[in-house]
Amino acid sequence: MIIVMKQGAPKEHIDHIIAHLQKKNLEPVPLIGVERTVIAVIGDERLLDTKHLRAMPSVGQVMPVLRPYKLASRETQPKDTVINIKGVKIGGKDLTIMAGPCSVESQEQISLTARAVAATGAQILRGGAFKPRTGPYSFEGHKEEGLKMMKKAAKESNMLIVTEVMDARDIDLVSKYADILQVGARNMQNYTLLRELGKTKKPVLLKRGLCAKLKEFLLAAEYILAGGNPNVILCERGIRTYEDDMRNTLSIGAIARTKELSHLPLIVDPSHATGRASLVSPAALASIAAGADGLIIEVHPNPEEALSDGDQSITPEQFKELMYKMVPVAAAVNKRISLTPPDEPKKPKKR
Amino acid sequence: MIIVMKQGAPKEHIDHIIAHLQKKNLEPVPLIGVERTVIAVIGDERLLDTKHLRAMPSVGQVMPVLRPYKLASRETQPKDTVINIKGVKIGGKDLTIMAGPCSVESQEQISLTARAVAATGAQILRGGAFKPRTGPYSFEGHKEEGLKMMKKAAKESNMLIVTEVMDARDIDLVSKYADILQVGARNMQNYTLLRELGKTKKPVLLKRGLCAKLKEFLLAAEYILAGGNPNVILCERGIRTYEDDMRNTLSIGAIARTKELSHLPLIVDPSHATGRASLVSPAALASIAAGADGLIIEVHPNPEEALSDGDQSITPEQFKELMYKMVPVAAAVNKRISLTPPDEPKKPKKR
Amino acid sequence: MIIVMKQGAPKEHIDHIIAHLQKKNLEPVPLIGVERTVIAVIGDERLLDTKHLRAMPSVGQVMPVLRPYKLASRETQPKDTVINIKGVKIGGKDLTIMAGPCSVESQEQISLTARAVAATGAQILRGGAFKPRTGPYSFEGHKEEGLKMMKKAAKESNMLIVTEVMDARDIDLVSKYADILQVGARNMQNYTLLRELGKTKKPVLLKRGLCAKLKEFLLAAEYILAGGNPNVILCERGIRTYEDDMRNTLSIGAIARTKELSHLPLIVDPSHATGRASLVSPAALASIAAGADGLIIEVHPNPEEALSDGDQSITPEQFKELMYKMVPVAAAVNKRISLTPPDEPKKPKKR
Amino acid sequence: MIIVMKQGAPKEHIDHIIAHLQKKNLEPVPLIGVERTVIAVIGDERLLDTKHLRAMPSVGQVMPVLRPYKLASRETQPKDTVINIKGVKIGGKDLTIMAGPCSVESQEQISLTARAVAATGAQILRGGAFKPRTGPYSFEGHKEEGLKMMKKAAKESNMLIVTEVMDARDIDLVSKYADILQVGARNMQNYTLLRELGKTKKPVLLKRGLCAKLKEFLLAAEYILAGGNPNVILCERGIRTYEDDMRNTLSIGAIARTKELSHLPLIVDPSHATGRASLVSPAALASIAAGADGLIIEVHPNPEEALSDGDQSITPEQFKELMYKMVPVAAAVNKRISLTPPDEPKKPKKR
Repeated sequence: MIIVMKQGAPKEHIDHIIAHLQKKNLEPVPLIGVERTVIAVIGDERLLDTKHLRAMPSVGQVMPVLRPYKLASRETQPKDTVINIKGVKIGGKDLTIMAGPCSVESQEQISLTARAVAATGAQILRGGAFKPRTGPYSFEGHKEEGLKMMKKAAKESNMLIVTEVMDARDIDLVSKYADILQVGARNMQNYTLLRELGKTKKPVLLKRGLCAKLKEFLLAAEYILAGGNPNVILCERGIRTYEDDMRNTLSIGAIARTKELSHLPLIVDPSHATGRASLVSPAALASIAAGADGLIIEVHPNPEEALSDGDQSITPEQFKELMYKMVPVAAAVNKRISLTPPDEPKKPKKR
Repeated sequence: MIIVMKQGAPKEHIDHIIAHLQKKNLEPVPLIGVERTVIAVIGDERLLDTKHLRAMPSVGQVMPVLRPYKLASRETQPKDTVINIKGVKIGGKDLTIMAGPCSVESQEQISLTARAVAATGAQILRGGAFKPRTGPYSFEGHKEEGLKMMKKAAKESNMLIVTEVMDARDIDLVSKYADILQVGARNMQNYTLLRELGKTKKPVLLKRGLCAKLKEFLLAAEYILAGGNPNVILCERGIRTYEDDMRNTLSIGAIARTKELSHLPLIVDPSHATGRASLVSPAALASIAAGADGLIIEVHPNPEEALSDGDQSITPEQFKELMYKMVPVAAAVNKRISLTPPDEPKKPKKR
Repeated sequence: MIIVMKQGAPKEHIDHIIAHLQKKNLEPVPLIGVERTVIAVIGDERLLDTKHLRAMPSVGQVMPVLRPYKLASRETQPKDTVINIKGVKIGGKDLTIMAGPCSVESQEQISLTARAVAATGAQILRGGAFKPRTGPYSFEGHKEEGLKMMKKAAKESNMLIVTEVMDARDIDLVSKYADILQVGARNMQNYTLLRELGKTKKPVLLKRGLCAKLKEFLLAAEYILAGGNPNVILCERGIRTYEDDMRNTLSIGAIARTKELSHLPLIVDPSHATGRASLVSPAALASIAAGADGLIIEVHPNPEEALSDGDQSITPEQFKELMYKMVPVAAAVNKRISLTPPDEPKKPKKR
Repeated sequence: MIIVMKQGAPKEHIDHIIAHLQKKNLEPVPLIGVERTVIAVIGDERLLDTKHLRAMPSVGQVMPVLRPYKLASRETQPKDTVINIKGVKIGGKDLTIMAGPCSVESQEQISLTARAVAATGAQILRGGAFKPRTGPYSFEGHKEEGLKMMKKAAKESNMLIVTEVMDARDIDLVSKYADILQVGARNMQNYTLLRELGKTKKPVLLKRGLCAKLKEFLLAAEYILAGGNPNVILCERGIRTYEDDMRNTLSIGAIARTKELSHLPLIVDPSHATGRASLVSPAALASIAAGADGLIIEVHPNPEEALSDGDQSITPEQFKELMYKMVPVAAAVNKRISLTPPDEPKKPKKR
């Protein structure tokens, strides 16, 4: 850590800080500059709450040197994490495709969609049974009934299930049906939920918050990892910016940078990230080119009748076309993608 | 609602939409323009999910005309809401000052602070017992022990208590001690929590999310109001922007605009909004001048030893100076502020 | 255009607006809704200054229906514009690669770089002779001397030249050397400069402003087009957001969306957009996958000695590797890319 | 400056950097930490281009310690700058009020407005003769004719004139009429213009760019100061954020923080900052409370007929009411404001 003192900081303020740091078993090195004094700190600064230091007299700036997350960092684990769920691998060389409707609406809708997306290689069925909605007057999902419909549809098509859990109290219920628990963007900093998920071993798809910095995104993952659950899958879904022509801003740089900073698998959601069906395909291809480990895509057999987010859903035909386009892009970045229906999921090993 | 069709939209697409709207008991009025056709819709568009419409063929744009929130809107209730808690009024002519440390650290710290801020007119004691923290390795608060300390301190100084509830399961516990339940910025869209708070009558201080639009902020309030709890107090605490020199960006316009859009009381948090002790006083004065109904301010007897957010806490002396400066500003905008210690809280009426 | 009146707007205010619109030869259609009156306007609303309307009594919102730009819009010209400069085509099926150092530093540096990037297919040499710098104390470029060095280097390697013009008074000078005049992001709304460039026929590479909306970006292009110069090349270089881990945020959606909205060629600058050499290659591939018509990349033979922006420059070896990776990605989106040195530029036709 | 090396940086990379710094007459101090090595640099780092360092092998981060601007900084000059123009003081104890229409439309309009605003204390007449417009099809102002009208109006009411100069070539022309030259937000980084203004002694009102950081804003001022013109007046006019309910986001913190960082006078433009006439008054009062040295306000005798920005103009009556409200707010922050018509401007001293 580097502490930059204000101009003209008196010696007793500097000494006060040095004493404070020494008490914390850190080694402070004062450097007397032309205009200012700087105190460099040797030791593990993460043990220190920097806000104390910022409040001390004559302190100008406090600049951390180490990243605040450890378990999520590639510095701690250089090798890509690969999460294997019943034979489906997430991370590493394989591209994983998750697809399905925004909301589970009926058995027919979800079964039909599952069959359609599995036919060209989607391995994981997405769909909302518990839906977070901005306003209190919108459709909120079929809850457990919806989970049952997903389960049936997934089984018919040999798929796994990813679906959102909105509250710590629902973890057990949703875990009965789902293979991956999704934490929605609005809940990325719901620490109660993160802590509870850290106590399970269930894979978690953690969506980036609407205005989370990459550091905060990885710190949210750290909550789950620190609890003892190593199965965290990151999900980039765009951020909020001044640009109002699309639902969100999907940053190419953030995809590549997240892969640089962390060993965790990264899935991109081009549907929420753009909010426009016509942009899903280019955004999906670009995400793969930028280094994503997979995609989660909204597909609806009849987008205009979708009970939510119809404007960003693509049809099964468009999905198929996209899957074929992905092959050469995947190859260009040394990734494998399968266009064949998934095999029956392997029995999970007992833990 | 206004539906703008794409250029060259065929007649059958237009007819399809008209039929859809009529089925929903709305009255569509097609307007054939020079370059495009526009369909104006008469009726309560809030009954309609606009996303369906966006997904229909040849639809270019869908523009809602009515605001999506009703109960929070000044159009529904032109008069300012005044919330009376044991004799302390929030909203209307009176400025309400909430003050206290970021975290409750010890009985001495909280009692001392309470006495100091009550002495110049603060009526409500703030302090964190359950603390949301960005990383999993930081101090998280003394939990119920902290609530007990707050209760004691508040009682000694005739103050009310506002403190955060982070999880729906803690509402009962926190309600035993607190007069106002705070929903933190990271939980503004935790709909489970909002719905549960809607079922109580307990006053709620709802903090604006880090990147919430005003519309979303008022929709979050609508969740609580729609559940049957009319006692919602809005709290502006700045938003995240590209400006990185301060913790957040506190928008003058948002303060004035929120008061225009809604009848609910609005409290400003200049401490989190700026993140710098030196800016708290000008930001507080400016908030009052812009129309805020009160302030929530971090005060710590010894900021440099604070266990959290010390760099943005002011001392009791600085708080006192600020209270005196507020008097003429309050007068300039027709608000009253008291500089005397609060009276004993009135017994709450049975409901 | 749609004019939404405030609730309870009196009839005389509505009549006043109707009369105003009729005077302007537009056809107003009042629609009396349940809660509000809406006036739909038939005719070319671009002839109207909407700000007048917004200031009229009882007007709530004014929503334009048509896009404010015409010449840049794909609605006006559905087919891709292809700009042919001495045989090098920009737009359409071909990917165009512009490469070179941030600043022209010496004859040796620029010639060496030109040879290196031309060897694997770059056709256009980039390099700054006039450099805009955030602070007044930084290196500002070699001015005309630098242009001469570029000219020599480009000639040796059969390349064309793109370089920035910072002031309308320099257009003639820079045009003597450059084939494409670049307008920097900071000058995207320098209307004097845009108007003067509209009077020439010289191709213009117009960089998107740091916080320009897509609409404003296309309106800036419209300035040049409206002046009579059809040779506008758009350049996406990322926008400023709260995300501070990278220099800028390069939006995948913006690339795809710009191609949807406009027929003009779109070049992406992955170097400025990410500000990190390690992210240039994934960002470049992703841009192509998203639909870009080419790239402008900073390449420096020795990035650590670069006089500006060394941290985002890649080496000639990295550039070569990137060019090879681009081939399959280009194929996946139906684009051609050449890996062979450019032919001698064709003599420009007299105009 | 602090240079943080990557983990495992080899000794020769560290030595390479140390040698480089020593060559530049700086004193590098290497600090070997637990996980990383940090090199602290003693000396005036502003002489160094940090981008070189960032491009060097094994360099992780480069953190400047000193601010990049000198002349604009309060560290260099602790005392408030007061600019005296013909007896009107800007900065220090006095609040300066600039008011007038967005565009000069006719002699009658400008004279009428001048009289109205001078009557309650405005000392400086604002008005656009050269108007920057986002699209090429909008009204661009009456140019020199407009300047003549302003001159006449200002003279009648004993006011000074502030008006925009959009191009370096117009400085002489505009200077003949104006007392203060305004640099618009879109031109804040038009370095040609800034440099030319640095060569004059004419007071400059420098508007903050739409997405300029405070550091960049002060660096733009530094351009003018470094050229030899000490008469720079900063103007805050809001920034662009995701919040789309108002034209811009006016940051309370930015006002107070700019006054902390710089000794230059700061004027706030509540009209452009909010874009809504109803918010001008609260935003103006809040700006004063936050520490601004004055205001620049759009006033139009008949806002609905304004040729530009009518929706954010207030009427002379509203202006008068605002001036009266400002008195107690000004007093609360130790500022003086005059409600009487200005005296005849003093003859400028020869320089």
